[in-house]
Amino acid sequence: MSKSSPATTTVGELLLSRLADLGVRHIFGLPGDYNMEFLDQIEAYDGIDWIGNCNEMNAAYAADGYGRLAGIAAMVTTFGPGELSVVNGLAGAMAESVPIVSIVGGPTMEIMDRRASMHHSLGDGDFDRWVRIAREVTVAQATLSPGNADAEIDRVLGECWTQRRPVYLRLPGDVAHQPVAMPAGGGAPPAAARWGAPRAALENAAQRLLAGAVCPALLVGNLPLRYGLGAEIASFLTERHWPAATQSLGRGLIDESSPNYVGIYNGGDSVEPVRQVIEGADVLVCVGTKFFDWDGLFTADLDPRRIITIGRGSCAVAGQIFEPVAPDAALARLHTIAPTRSVDWPTAADPGRAPDARLDPASNRPITQARFWPALATILEEGDIIVPETGTSSFGVGSIRLPRNAVCVQAPLWGAIGYAIPAAFGAATASPDRRIVLITGDGSLQLTVQEISRMMALGQRPIIFVMNNAGYTVERVVNGPHQPYNDIDNWRYADLPAVFNREVAIDSHLVSTEGELADVLDRLHGVPARPTVVEVLVDQQDLPAGMPQWGKETTAVDYQTTLRAEPKLSWRGLPG
Amino acid sequence: MSKSSPATTTVGELLLSRLADLGVRHIFGLPGDYNMEFLDQIEAYDGIDWIGNCNEMNAAYAADGYGRLAGIAAMVTTFGPGELSVVNGLAGAMAESVPIVSIVGGPTMEIMDRRASMHHSLGDGDFDRWVRIAREVTVAQATLSPGNADAEIDRVLGECWTQRRPVYLRLPGDVAHQPVAMPAGGGAPPAAARWGAPRAALENAAQRLLAGAVCPALLVGNLPLRYGLGAEIASFLTERHWPAATQSLGRGLIDESSPNYVGIYNGGDSVEPVRQVIEGADVLVCVGTKFFDWDGLFTADLDPRRIITIGRGSCAVAGQIFEPVAPDAALARLHTIAPTRSVDWPTAADPGRAPDARLDPASNRPITQARFWPALATILEEGDIIVPETGTSSFGVGSIRLPRNAVCVQAPLWGAIGYAIPAAFGAATASPDRRIVLITGDGSLQLTVQEISRMMALGQRPIIFVMNNAGYTVERVVNGPHQPYNDIDNWRYADLPAVFNREVAIDSHLVSTEGELADVLDRLHGVPARPTVVEVLVDQQDLPAGMPQWGKETTAVDYQTTLRAEPKLSWRGLPG
Repeated sequence: MSKSSPATTTVGELLLSRLADLGVRHIFGLPGDYNMEFLDQIEAYDGIDWIGNCNEMNAAYAADGYGRLAGIAAMVTTFGPGELSVVNGLAGAMAESVPIVSIVGGPTMEIMDRRASMHHSLGDGDFDRWVRIAREVTVAQATLSPGNADAEIDRVLGECWTQRRPVYLRLPGDVAHQPVAMPAGGGAPPAAARWGAPRAALENAAQRLLAGAVCPALLVGNLPLRYGLGAEIASFLTERHWPAATQSLGRGLIDESSPNYVGIYNGGDSVEPVRQVIEGADVLVCVGTKFFDWDGLFTADLDPRRIITIGRGSCAVAGQIFEPVAPDAALARLHTIAPTRSVDWPTAADPGRAPDARLDPASNRPITQARFWPALATILEEGDIIVPETGTSSFGVGSIRLPRNAVCVQAPLWGAIGYAIPAAFGAATASPDRRIVLITGDGSLQLTVQEISRMMALGQRPIIFVMNNAGYTVERVVNGPHQPYNDIDNWRYADLPAVFNREVAIDSHLVSTEGELADVLDRLHGVPARPTVVEVLVDQQDLPAGMPQWGKETTAVDYQTTLRAEPKLSWRGLPG
Repeated sequence: MSKSSPATTTVGELLLSRLADLGVRHIFGLPGDYNMEFLDQIEAYDGIDWIGNCNEMNAAYAADGYGRLAGIAAMVTTFGPGELSVVNGLAGAMAESVPIVSIVGGPTMEIMDRRASMHHSLGDGDFDRWVRIAREVTVAQATLSPGNADAEIDRVLGECWTQRRPVYLRLPGDVAHQPVAMPAGGGAPPAAARWGAPRAALENAAQRLLAGAVCPALLVGNLPLRYGLGAEIASFLTERHWPAATQSLGRGLIDESSPNYVGIYNGGDSVEPVRQVIEGADVLVCVGTKFFDWDGLFTADLDPRRIITIGRGSCAVAGQIFEPVAPDAALARLHTIAPTRSVDWPTAADPGRAPDARLDPASNRPITQARFWPALATILEEGDIIVPETGTSSFGVGSIRLPRNAVCVQAPLWGAIGYAIPAAFGAATASPDRRIVLITGDGSLQLTVQEISRMMALGQRPIIFVMNNAGYTVERVVNGPHQPYNDIDNWRYADLPAVFNREVAIDSHLVSTEGELADVLDRLHGVPARPTVVEVLVDQQDLPAGMPQWGKETTAVDYQTTLRAEPKLSWRGLPG
């Protein structure tokens, strides 16, 4: 790290030191003519590495995957084409609550002040246009200058960290190297300083509701993952003997092999034991949940009067909202006041432990979705990072249990196909020693395929399953099962890695029978010696469990002028 | 085409028939769960074909390339991730004035009205968020309903066509199939109806300025291409004996083999004869020009008091603005009142006709940028669609002359790398009988490589030169010539097509010497029998003509706190 005098630094180096304080060790992105002096500072900075991406959309997805593992992420793009290519990714991070610091190299302060007609703009002198767009997909924004950098960096990073959502910092081309006073104190920006412990009114309300509870239960969304509440929730469940379900958003928080875990709750589409535990709870505590159409908004049979929600800076008890409250403090108090449950609960079957989950190496039967996912479950290992693409893969992984300490990197609310490959790249960058099991489809892969090249160049050794079912099966289920618009080109998926790198050797397989798949799965123990691609041929119309019902519901929600049934939950879902 | 009764139709079919009226024959995009009932209507519609893309960013670039050839383009994406992935492409189309109708399948009217927490949103019930973003990158927006569709389709398409810029139409999932009255009259939306012929004041002012002109000249930007003014300008130049230069934005409008053509004007970076003709003109007529930093904004020595500008709906004479004026009407009047020039002008050399432009098949010399581009010029043919990627390729093509009736698809103002491949795909879709000569770099290719697969699947036979210079040379020139952030992975570019298609045979070449290149170039006559990829190895630091100077200027503009020289042009450029 190059240093100025002790009392001053440069704007770029101050930003890097604040990012490092928050745990950023890698920064994603692409060079662009407006950002390279800051990239020079990154190259020179000890403790943060530059990780180039093939394009900016992929950079945003990679940052998202990284942020889920490392707790926070940063990326650098350039004014105009670069920053507008990450709008989708930032919106996804907003939806899914992933803290990403999006740093944009912009034109110099003089150029912007003089409203010059510049490349990468509309040539109209309006340099706030892209900032106005950023406002819609981030929780805080600033254009840095030598005069404001000390205050604005901390304000904006503070919002990123407090809300666990993306922010936007524009760094004009002449600002990165300008001197700025080192702020007094140093250290990390305030985390959730403006939220506090629960007050008496909230505690009393919660206590009244919990008082007579006989069969309470817990439901978790994604916020406990982001706020690092896993250990606290695990000890709560054990000590209070509560059952817990997870939303798809929150997978990986609760040990799915523990007796407290019942499964994934997504309203009327949940498997029966899960539905009974959650909808039959006399008090349901929701921690950082988010209800939306694909996770049961229109089919959940839940009574808000029996629900306590611990959300982002606020809590709700029987519909009454209390704020501000820090989620960790709220959970700690809940732990103290919650009753111990005495009633047992039913448990759902674990498909990965079914007697026929392991495939017969001698079988010539074609591979079906029904057989693939339990078989996959048998080879998953503790600590795996599992990255199922939205679509058949997310449904497939939704039908099996994760091993202990496994992480599931997926974005069910945002639901952008193409996310999985770059997100896996980002997750692997954050956690280089953990095994990556990426499962994507042929259609989704085509959106963001180039990031496989970056994985290989950086020595990552993911296992990549490509479910080749000849098109967008996730769309066929909703509409147009045989329409040409859901067809795609049939690439040689297993041959891709050899094109993306002239040196790295890979293991590549193409399997179409259970026996061939069994043979490959049998060899997958631990992190493979080489990047491994398994192209799995499956029928175009074949679906994993849960997906046919989801397809019917989505068709109705997406295209019916009037929904038949009034949903039991509010149309806006529950607080959270 | 499926039809309702003569007096009524459906919203989707009305939209399709209006698009067809404007000349749309293909619609780009991807299926998404909110848009597929409209895609069904496209499949059923006689006269418009659905052209799927690999991802939405590529769809926007393809639509942009298509729009430049066909006059207008349309694409369909889905709410949220889909539409936000085209924000960059739409901004580019705004900057470059390409009319694209961006159609977004959205949630149903009831869902939006009830503010339901939906996938592909932030789950906050705010369904206008993405529309607010669209407002920054399109000239008109609407959310269609059965009640407003007849009026809103025509209003929004009318703005698209009048301004030749992108627009945004959201089609809620339940609206595409709802009945709507067929509007009286039918036919195309009004084109430029609100602009008229020049009034007397404008004509008098122009006449006064032109009265004493001895050595007038013409400079064209991109608007004459969009408004179809090529024939009118050609006859003007011949009849009035004026010299003309083009901005990079406007290449392809003027026949570059004609005696009236002098070359590309980009301020102080222009070759000398061009600078003399344009800066030495006593009256300069600018037709649809756009001045910005990369085309001479800070170095052009032009006096606005000697300039007549014909712009989008307005004209300027010596800095005085007159509006509204239709550009075609203004040009026609100019033709009438302009004097005939009697003074001759100098002409620039044509590198493609230099004696040594043709390469020696026996040479073992490595390929240099200085030798590549004149050699390329020797094989270009009348009517070629030439697609040079922003970077060394655009500078290279900028250094040579185009054949008659050639089109140059490039986006110099927006300057997004990665544009060229999908834009070439779109251009080829619009003009299937013309030869595509795409020249891209290894870095740019990696952003949008997957669209090569769509070219192959649809039977297109482009010639694709991949200038492999081991990274982002266009960035190295500006900053970090040896910095790792400008390095990229070294793919087997020539092997890519074989992975993207299991059936289509291709011609693939890897060349590193002049002799090898000569051998390949010699075989390229007319549209090749098969898609052709030529990977050209060139040195990382080697640059085509003009690029070193551009690099120095860009470094100064991008990173210097105070620019040394006050530009001669206004910081905002000239009207246009």
